[in-house]
Amino acid sequence: MRVLGIDPGLTRCGMGVVEGDVGRPLKLIDVNVIRTSSHLPVPERLVSIEQGIEAWLDEHRPDAVAVERVFARADVSTVMGTAQASGIAMVCAARRGLPIALHTPTEVKAAVSGNGRADKAQVGAMVTRILRLDAMPKPADAADALALAITHIWRGGAQARIDAAVAAAGGVCR
Amino acid sequence: MRVLGIDPGLTRCGMGVVEGDVGRPLKLIDVNVIRTSSHLPVPERLVSIEQGIEAWLDEHRPDAVAVERVFARADVSTVMGTAQASGIAMVCAARRGLPIALHTPTEVKAAVSGNGRADKAQVGAMVTRILRLDAMPKPADAADALALAITHIWRGGAQARIDAAVAAAGGVCR
Repeated sequence: MRVLGIDPGLTRCGMGVVEGDVGRPLKLIDVNVIRTSSHLPVPERLVSIEQGIEAWLDEHRPDAVAVERVFARADVSTVMGTAQASGIAMVCAARRGLPIALHTPTEVKAAVSGNGRADKAQVGAMVTRILRLDAMPKPADAADALALAITHIWRGGAQARIDAAVAAAGGVCR
Repeated sequence: MRVLGIDPGLTRCGMGVVEGDVGRPLKLIDVNVIRTSSHLPVPERLVSIEQGIEAWLDEHRPDAVAVERVFARADVSTVMGTAQASGIAMVCAARRGLPIALHTPTEVKAAVSGNGRADKAQVGAMVTRILRLDAMPKPADAADALALAITHIWRGGAQARIDAAVAAAGGVCR
């Protein structure tokens, strides 16, 4: 499966496309950061983010989109822009009927590093190792977007195995 | 001028269209609330809101859009959905090149009632009087959207008069 991970943000919106399945090596398809200037009005910035995401959905045709779940307790000065950007990301995917999953930062850190409190450098280092890259993706938003996509493939795979096991055992309702 | 006021929200998104100019009676064109079920996934709810706003932009062709400015200090349980809905509203307007203004709740209350701390009932009563309606628009989100549109016309008109006076006096740079 091919997953687009989106680390939403108004100033930097990370996008990472990863392909693969659980138990097999994952492959980096593409990674990028949409940047918008803080000198522009917010509506224009959101339209730029929408256009950037739409372009990637057209180009990479992912099977699913994973977006970082934003919490109100995050940094107050940036959380509204982050929430707005995450809303745009969700709408872009939902308009196309793509499955969308929201993963918390803790889930992502735990999935890629085994430690829900890993720092940015640890997450970046694990993404670099998992995708067998020559260098750590920069900036951190790019690495975070890839980590989201990796998390989605691994969690989705685990869920798919559980579902299959449940189905093989006769279904949920027994 | 014709203004679409949007009181963003995930469960109830108020939309009100008002036409008029400063110093003349304002006219209610239409008012509605987009409702989305909390049982649906957030991305689907945001797409419904986008479709509802798009339909009104098509139908009412406003000259400007006024959106309530959302603050991170608002109710934490709903603020993320409100921020996401406001982002959708801004993108819908910006894609069409429409002027967008953000007004704070305090600005709106002060504009329609003369009191920045007016409660919902006072705002609703003033909207009813200003637009010469037979009954108060319900729910409060509908009245708030109309109050936003009224605020925008009145503030915009005042700004236009100041700009004209400055221009008549020889411009800003003298």
